[in-house]
Amino acid sequence: MNWLVASCATPNQQFLALARARQAQLTKPPQALGTLETIAIRLAGLQACEQPSVERVQISIFASDHGIVAEGVSAFPQAVTQQMVANFLQGGAAISVLAKSLQASLEIVDVGILEPLSEQAGLVIQRAGAGTANSLQTAAMTCEQVQLALQAGYAAAERAYSHQAELFIGGEMGIGNTTAATVLYCALLNLSPSTMTGAGTGLDAAGIAHKTQVITQILQRHAACGQDALAWLTCAGGFEIAALTGAYLRAAQLGLPILLDGFITTAAALVALKLQPALQDWLFLSHTSAERGHQSAITALGLQPLLDLNLRLGEGSGAAIALPIMRQACLLHNQMATFAEAAVAGKLR
Amino acid sequence: MNWLVASCATPNQQFLALARARQAQLTKPPQALGTLETIAIRLAGLQACEQPSVERVQISIFASDHGIVAEGVSAFPQAVTQQMVANFLQGGAAISVLAKSLQASLEIVDVGILEPLSEQAGLVIQRAGAGTANSLQTAAMTCEQVQLALQAGYAAAERAYSHQAELFIGGEMGIGNTTAATVLYCALLNLSPSTMTGAGTGLDAAGIAHKTQVITQILQRHAACGQDALAWLTCAGGFEIAALTGAYLRAAQLGLPILLDGFITTAAALVALKLQPALQDWLFLSHTSAERGHQSAITALGLQPLLDLNLRLGEGSGAAIALPIMRQACLLHNQMATFAEAAVAGKLR
Repeated sequence: MNWLVASCATPNQQFLALARARQAQLTKPPQALGTLETIAIRLAGLQACEQPSVERVQISIFASDHGIVAEGVSAFPQAVTQQMVANFLQGGAAISVLAKSLQASLEIVDVGILEPLSEQAGLVIQRAGAGTANSLQTAAMTCEQVQLALQAGYAAAERAYSHQAELFIGGEMGIGNTTAATVLYCALLNLSPSTMTGAGTGLDAAGIAHKTQVITQILQRHAACGQDALAWLTCAGGFEIAALTGAYLRAAQLGLPILLDGFITTAAALVALKLQPALQDWLFLSHTSAERGHQSAITALGLQPLLDLNLRLGEGSGAAIALPIMRQACLLHNQMATFAEAAVAGKLR
Repeated sequence: MNWLVASCATPNQQFLALARARQAQLTKPPQALGTLETIAIRLAGLQACEQPSVERVQISIFASDHGIVAEGVSAFPQAVTQQMVANFLQGGAAISVLAKSLQASLEIVDVGILEPLSEQAGLVIQRAGAGTANSLQTAAMTCEQVQLALQAGYAAAERAYSHQAELFIGGEMGIGNTTAATVLYCALLNLSPSTMTGAGTGLDAAGIAHKTQVITQILQRHAACGQDALAWLTCAGGFEIAALTGAYLRAAQLGLPILLDGFITTAAALVALKLQPALQDWLFLSHTSAERGHQSAITALGLQPLLDLNLRLGEGSGAAIALPIMRQACLLHNQMATFAEAAVAGKLR
């Protein structure tokens, strides 16, 4: 597992400076394209090129089940994890519709749903187990399992790289996974379950109160993990969260920019950042999730969301919805005329 | 000019209800797609159909010059208005790049730049004059001029309608027009020049202080306009703002949804809303502009922006950047599977 702490690639300072200089020459008032200018400049540095691009995109959705669901922390039954994976593959889910329209490459990775599906196109089977254990009673994963799950993410990033993807998007499906993610936020950012626990797929107030209690107990049960991110991932995480952690670390090592989705993927990024802080350079955050706690988490992590549209679906859908903003940022950077080319006068003073 | 106060079309309640019911059946937790659900439902009502769409889009950019520029209120010289119109037509401006990638129909309407350009493809010449008069000294427009400018907007909406556009986007170009727009906000929303006046294309602090003074004086000069929106438009507006006002009113009368851009277009919408409050149903707001004062204005108008990306370019560019969000909202509404179709289990309780 030495790859986990290997160095991330380094943004290219020369192309960063070139991109900054070009933005200052395009026919618009300085900084008038706001965040889109920042995106283009950052991508030019990350991709080490004059013309950044995020046309070729891989979306890997990691799916797995959670033992903690036995404690009644979700508004939807556990069977929905596998049913939604089938829906992803049949093209009926939000991320399926979005990926198709974006011409992004979509793959679903079964990293440990309860009952596996048969082999089929678009499905990668790389299971760390048949769902995690109940983290209220024991560690969610064994050490072998967390390594298998991290490796599933590693492999997805390698596939993206070998297919010349210009951007990596991770998504997830796993009934119960807002509980696992909330534990990670509370443990690693020193935040309180009472302010961080949200409705997930749609709990009512009583359900949220119960979930808050369960999360508090999980935190107590595994308090010995201290500030060890890998220990928390093992004891309270999910296979899909571990896979996302591995995918993000490997993507950054390979020099592949990452667009984070929402609540769950940011928790995976948190674990990855604890292992390798230089990952931060490679992360773009698509949106602020409507799931309670996400705002606090991204503030603590210093991430700037592109969108705030009250989304809370997961699946990578928020990242897919934000992708056109990044594509437009690149197009504008690459295709706008300069003041000199268009013979437009500059500022008076 | 009776058309100005003609009724807007009425959203179809039956298709609104159908769209709401469909959203509740799609394979996602209720409301998990947040604002995208609202967009799809609203569009279904406005377009009176089951499958809303904003694939066919007309972008009309109205360009004109402003006499108030003589008072030193802009960081860029007045010649830039005409130079940028040439840049729009040559494909080098932000909106040109965006419109092409969005496959939107782009037209530039010269409604009164100082020196007209020769006739050419993509340029509509419908001039209300050669720039407005200096509103610090006299009314910016005559009554005939404001009518001509409003008519230029009317004609653009009619063109969009006849070309079966599913969405209308207005943009603008006019050095000096943040001054005109700020006067309209202050006069019609009872807001203060000291909190509403911003940098426009890039004034420094001293420039903003001077611009604030000029705006205060314009407000005093034309105080007799009281709460008469058309009088303020005539005395302190611009030809392009009047054209946008006319375009929005006519689009809503024709049943064509509107995506507002930023600071200038919202001021035109404000005038239009004063003339016809029912216009509100037809408006989507693309973003919160980085131009100081826009946030206060949209709060006062009760508009919900889709994006907040620190944009302040105008040209319709913010609307173009937000368009993919509306398109994705429609795609998801039309193409996602229902729980029944995908055999996914529903909520537990």
